[in-house]
Amino acid sequence: MSLLNLVRENLMNISSRRISRCFSRSATSKRPHFPCVEAHAVRESQLRQTTFGSIPSSVSSTDSSESGPEPPYARPNPKSYHVYHDPAPLELTYASPLPSFDVAYETWGTLSPEKDNAILLHTGLSASSHAASTALNPAPGWWEKFIGPGKALDTNQFFIICTNVVGGCYGSTGPSSIDPTTGTHYATNFPIVSIFDMVRAQFRLLDHLGIDTLYASVGCSLGGMQSLAAGWLHPERVGKIVSISGTARSSPSAVAMRYAQRSVLMADPNWNYGFYYDKLPPHTGMKLARQIATITYRSGPEWDLRFGRQMRPVLEQSPDKPRAPALCPDFLIETYLDHQGEQFCLKYDANSLIYISKAMDLFDLTASSLSANHLIIPSSSASTPTLSFTPHQTSHSKSHPPPANPPPHLIDLAEGMQPLSKIPTLVLGVQSDILFTVEQQRETADALRMVGNEQVSYYELGGVWGHDTFLLDVLNVGGAIRGFLS
Amino acid sequence: MSLLNLVRENLMNISSRRISRCFSRSATSKRPHFPCVEAHAVRESQLRQTTFGSIPSSVSSTDSSESGPEPPYARPNPKSYHVYHDPAPLELTYASPLPSFDVAYETWGTLSPEKDNAILLHTGLSASSHAASTALNPAPGWWEKFIGPGKALDTNQFFIICTNVVGGCYGSTGPSSIDPTTGTHYATNFPIVSIFDMVRAQFRLLDHLGIDTLYASVGCSLGGMQSLAAGWLHPERVGKIVSISGTARSSPSAVAMRYAQRSVLMADPNWNYGFYYDKLPPHTGMKLARQIATITYRSGPEWDLRFGRQMRPVLEQSPDKPRAPALCPDFLIETYLDHQGEQFCLKYDANSLIYISKAMDLFDLTASSLSANHLIIPSSSASTPTLSFTPHQTSHSKSHPPPANPPPHLIDLAEGMQPLSKIPTLVLGVQSDILFTVEQQRETADALRMVGNEQVSYYELGGVWGHDTFLLDVLNVGGAIRGFLS
Repeated sequence: MSLLNLVRENLMNISSRRISRCFSRSATSKRPHFPCVEAHAVRESQLRQTTFGSIPSSVSSTDSSESGPEPPYARPNPKSYHVYHDPAPLELTYASPLPSFDVAYETWGTLSPEKDNAILLHTGLSASSHAASTALNPAPGWWEKFIGPGKALDTNQFFIICTNVVGGCYGSTGPSSIDPTTGTHYATNFPIVSIFDMVRAQFRLLDHLGIDTLYASVGCSLGGMQSLAAGWLHPERVGKIVSISGTARSSPSAVAMRYAQRSVLMADPNWNYGFYYDKLPPHTGMKLARQIATITYRSGPEWDLRFGRQMRPVLEQSPDKPRAPALCPDFLIETYLDHQGEQFCLKYDANSLIYISKAMDLFDLTASSLSANHLIIPSSSASTPTLSFTPHQTSHSKSHPPPANPPPHLIDLAEGMQPLSKIPTLVLGVQSDILFTVEQQRETADALRMVGNEQVSYYELGGVWGHDTFLLDVLNVGGAIRGFLS
Repeated sequence: MSLLNLVRENLMNISSRRISRCFSRSATSKRPHFPCVEAHAVRESQLRQTTFGSIPSSVSSTDSSESGPEPPYARPNPKSYHVYHDPAPLELTYASPLPSFDVAYETWGTLSPEKDNAILLHTGLSASSHAASTALNPAPGWWEKFIGPGKALDTNQFFIICTNVVGGCYGSTGPSSIDPTTGTHYATNFPIVSIFDMVRAQFRLLDHLGIDTLYASVGCSLGGMQSLAAGWLHPERVGKIVSISGTARSSPSAVAMRYAQRSVLMADPNWNYGFYYDKLPPHTGMKLARQIATITYRSGPEWDLRFGRQMRPVLEQSPDKPRAPALCPDFLIETYLDHQGEQFCLKYDANSLIYISKAMDLFDLTASSLSANHLIIPSSSASTPTLSFTPHQTSHSKSHPPPANPPPHLIDLAEGMQPLSKIPTLVLGVQSDILFTVEQQRETADALRMVGNEQVSYYELGGVWGHDTFLLDVLNVGGAIRGFLS
């Protein structure tokens, strides 16, 4: 963290010194200053000067003239979480198996003697297994207010397990891991992984823990996809499914927004085709990617309320002249995006972002996609009823019955989701979510009902928090989960 | 154009050769190929090799070791449009006056002897004055189907003038122009310009043409803002206003989306703080910026219909193995964004994109913003009626009456828009537009009605074309304009 603080402090000093000079046109200075652009170079220079820890000896450098810094994710603290190492290969959807793999995980609550009270919690894209504070790591987790005694995931009742996904960078095997066959970082020689692969690794952990059946599989965003995939792969091992702001089939607009992020990241020369682990990381590309992502995580109405058209304070403003605008951030919405990018750019591994966002794009539970990817619908579900087009009245929402004449893609999706026909499922979406739209949530619920699932709970939340609602709305999201699980 | 074609051809060859190798993991090749990233380097190499025309002698190079290519916008063809040169200074909202300026323009139809049939057509961000084909330039224009005999802008009846905005790169003075005081390109020493400044330059052209009063001011997107600004600056010289998918006050979410574009562009090392005119242009940054922009121009529902989850064809696919996905574009939505970026990256000047998008962000007709920027509400409108909160029944849309208890920003906006209280105005928006949302359109119409404008026509269009509807929907957009102008 001291590296991050050092860089941040330096940027703040430069920024306050230059803020009044931003875009100043003076006779003496031919070139205006752009603190928002100069910040990238400043950070790069700081990173070059700071050798933060030593490079693991097993890493061979292709260009040893450049000493590399080490972002926090490159030095995980395995004392703060558990790691399950599986020496056997992990089957992958699109590639040859991983020879072996690690899964980092944390737990809350107590596993019952019958081992029947386990909840597998799936994370969003960039989250670690640290969903809530533990004895090993007392720092607040990303879902701190949702996990604990009497909370949405009630630790008095349940044993919660949260993992870092395969492909991630917080202790599980991913592109930043050492490939045992070469002794160097996988980088972009890491295979493309699917949501199914992530879930397969999780179930290997469950096997190791002796947990045969989950009380529930719970997840938000990417975690919502995993939650559905868990039920699909192992319908007999999943008691209930919770999918919050997830989807059963990524939409082209979500693919577009993730593609824009991958594009700016991969265009950063520091990305170096993914081979940067012994060099400077692509911090500028990560910052730009996170700025775009942040736009998709909240909503226009929230920004209207929170920032409106307010501008950042200017140190030296003449009262008798209009405020001189800058080409760098002026409006608070801009400084907010800048700040979000800045906070993230050294915290998360660029390749993990690329691989996991790609896995999200590829997720598609339609029968045609599953079949094209050689994912065979489990035979145990072959006897499920044929598709039904009559809305089931057990839904909590009567407002969106399955369409009387469903479009072909919805029929295709229902056919693919047959394994989920008997698992009680909570589908919850947010109307202001532009990344996983309510149309996606309705589609998921519709397909489940069409395949005969009579225990679909469907909620749509209002509010202005967009996709991030699952992190913020303890009352409504937490309440819906608690009600559904009890 | 031959440079563009050369680059494009080269990219296509490389792309088809490498397409099957994309992300291939083989024992012999340690590093996977990324054609989508390599394309940037290929283009850069091509641009370095191709000296396209000679550098204008008046341009002093700060690094003459690097011979620069010349994108099409850097070699305008002033025989294909008219240029009005004004040797007198142009007053600017935020900076010292421009010492002199050019306005490129084209016209259609015939100016009446009374000079009372002129329509000033304002463009979107990246458009030139070439709205439709002319004798000087027979190529189709960006609004070809909207301009002509019997069309939305009927040349049998009206004399249409379209300009390239100040700040642009198609013949009007902008960052790529030569600063007469230094003899070099303005680059980012160009002053920040406002929408008002663009309109001031247009009215200087109208003065030159002897046109005292416009029959109408018409514009879409950025042009819609200019159209409102024209009426605001010169209420006595504007007969009617048409604002299609524009706004009276840029929203923070639109600022966010433009900020993301400026950020990726300014992070391209070739941008070089804006001083690239004698060097390689920031083609990669422009491509990335255009990809983001394209996401905001259309809509998710359109992509659902147009692309769905279709993937690009793969040359060598084994029928007995799943298709191997790539980290480069797989889905058609991705290749579409890639193509849109590719098409644009050398066509438009990066600095013009930055300056004009900033002008859009700054546009705000609220009384408080106008006053802070020393924009004085014209005295001729001081006698307008006080704000009214009763909806006027002359609107074509009864569905969105002004709110009974308008929020403070709407009252502020209505106060600022007093100069527009007597000008018949058409406000048209599109429900699937995520950049200039219908909320923005309603706000504009509400503010006009609140200030006593009894001739507000308000339309909301459905459909899936999003912001681009104004370029595509001849029937509905064209029809509404034709009806309103007649």
